[in-house]
Amino acid sequence: MKNSPEHFGDRLTAAIKNKKTPLVVGLDPRWDNLPDDIKSIGNQAEAFEVFCKAIIDVVADKVPAVKPQSAFFEQLGPAGVVALGRVTEYAREKGLLTIMDAKRGDIGSTATAYAKAYLDRSENGPWQCDSLTVNPYLGDDSLTPFCDVAMENGAGIFVLAKTSNPGSKTFQEKTIGADGGKLFELVADHLQMLAARNIGDSGFGFVGAVVGATWPEELVALRKRMPNVIFLIPGFGAQGGSAADIAGGLNEHGLGGVINSSRGIIFAYERPEFEAIVNWQDAVSLAADMAIGQIAADSNAGKLRL
Amino acid sequence: MKNSPEHFGDRLTAAIKNKKTPLVVGLDPRWDNLPDDIKSIGNQAEAFEVFCKAIIDVVADKVPAVKPQSAFFEQLGPAGVVALGRVTEYAREKGLLTIMDAKRGDIGSTATAYAKAYLDRSENGPWQCDSLTVNPYLGDDSLTPFCDVAMENGAGIFVLAKTSNPGSKTFQEKTIGADGGKLFELVADHLQMLAARNIGDSGFGFVGAVVGATWPEELVALRKRMPNVIFLIPGFGAQGGSAADIAGGLNEHGLGGVINSSRGIIFAYERPEFEAIVNWQDAVSLAADMAIGQIAADSNAGKLRL
Repeated sequence: MKNSPEHFGDRLTAAIKNKKTPLVVGLDPRWDNLPDDIKSIGNQAEAFEVFCKAIIDVVADKVPAVKPQSAFFEQLGPAGVVALGRVTEYAREKGLLTIMDAKRGDIGSTATAYAKAYLDRSENGPWQCDSLTVNPYLGDDSLTPFCDVAMENGAGIFVLAKTSNPGSKTFQEKTIGADGGKLFELVADHLQMLAARNIGDSGFGFVGAVVGATWPEELVALRKRMPNVIFLIPGFGAQGGSAADIAGGLNEHGLGGVINSSRGIIFAYERPEFEAIVNWQDAVSLAADMAIGQIAADSNAGKLRL
Repeated sequence: MKNSPEHFGDRLTAAIKNKKTPLVVGLDPRWDNLPDDIKSIGNQAEAFEVFCKAIIDVVADKVPAVKPQSAFFEQLGPAGVVALGRVTEYAREKGLLTIMDAKRGDIGSTATAYAKAYLDRSENGPWQCDSLTVNPYLGDDSLTPFCDVAMENGAGIFVLAKTSNPGSKTFQEKTIGADGGKLFELVADHLQMLAARNIGDSGFGFVGAVVGATWPEELVALRKRMPNVIFLIPGFGAQGGSAADIAGGLNEHGLGGVINSSRGIIFAYERPEFEAIVNWQDAVSLAADMAIGQIAADSNAGKLRL
């Protein structure tokens, strides 16, 4: 086990306090949405890299972390994955924590391979991310290797609990057995147990949970159910979750969760209200500031500014 | 919808009949297990590529498909992913179907990005795989994009139902609600419904299910529960599943499933019984022949040889 400065829960909490906001920016590059000057690069993988680095330049002083979405890079094949590696490295250089959104999950030595791929923070690590999203369906022994590698590296994992999509009802909301708990609550209890293996000085463990902004009531209940688990809250903005909706995911100090916005920020120049802004980076900057302000106004995150 | 020759269920069934076996070989390269002459290459990504291509050369005439495990390539970072792309391309050139074992899962346009990454079989597709393993935890709307892209491309998906690991009990075996069905059975019913959207002349759909060889009773029950779903059965060999254990996963014609073996074949030269074999490729060849023979002797797969 690492000392406190190397503990993921502590590192993320310190970054949230330092930037005075739980907002994180999702790096979800999509060719059709790129600004014209980026599209003119021609090569898609290179364009993704240049675009994401430009976003990082805009938000590096504003937010604690970025969340690259692996899928959009993988869609370009190996060249896209090379670009993803460069984007992640650049974010690190700019002092941002990285949440690799890859939703990996497997068993035994295969799970260890995924964990080492993304969470080995030594010089030898190919990605050196600070954290990784993980899918729990395969069960407890599929999460153990991710936990072990994360703890060795002062890294963290965010495990899917209640996802932001309507279809999260299909399986996650099913009632288990006679006592009436739901599958995502069972997952939540398991994550609290795993987080408790290594709680930092911040009070938060190295295991986080993904809980969608689109489920405000569940956020409140799950915040109580997992007191030592940091939440990654997607679905804010484009997916319909408001700043008031996510309020329950943060504790009374405005801590315990990060709130992700992707499209609403990185493609802000497409939003009608920003039409008059000439420089697309200025629209991104303004959209990030506005999201930070909304979250501070409508949740306990405002306390981070005091 | 594509015509029958382009239907994944039909293509896989034809390949099984052609090779007279449901055995598929998992490409799980691990540095520590590589033969000395491969290790002497030095560069790990290059060594993985050379090793997997050599395995493909040995098994191309014996089996219908190979299943590359993405995790081991991702562990090497972008260079490993480049190697994975070359291995997949080589398998295709050698006439093998490819099952990309990446266990992806996400929602909306992100799921579409993953699906297009791996299942776009046009010349523009970066990977052009025939099928992909998918995790169902995110729910029905997370599976739809994978289904849509698969159908457009004559490709298939294998969705995790009951995985081979002991920890599959943690969530997959939990009883749902009052009627006593288990989570994996609910997933199974959903997969049968999805498969029924597009059943080929073979009687099998484009949606498959992952069901571990380590659960022989569940294999029998799930085979009946999902009559139009092709099974991907891992856990044969090194994980403890015997040829008799997997028998229930195949129908009376020996069809409806593929049985994966990874370590037991690709690292066969490490097995004590093959110690006397000088050339490691000969050990791989013999291990594949033995697995094919065992499966034919102890399951309905023997009928494929008549």
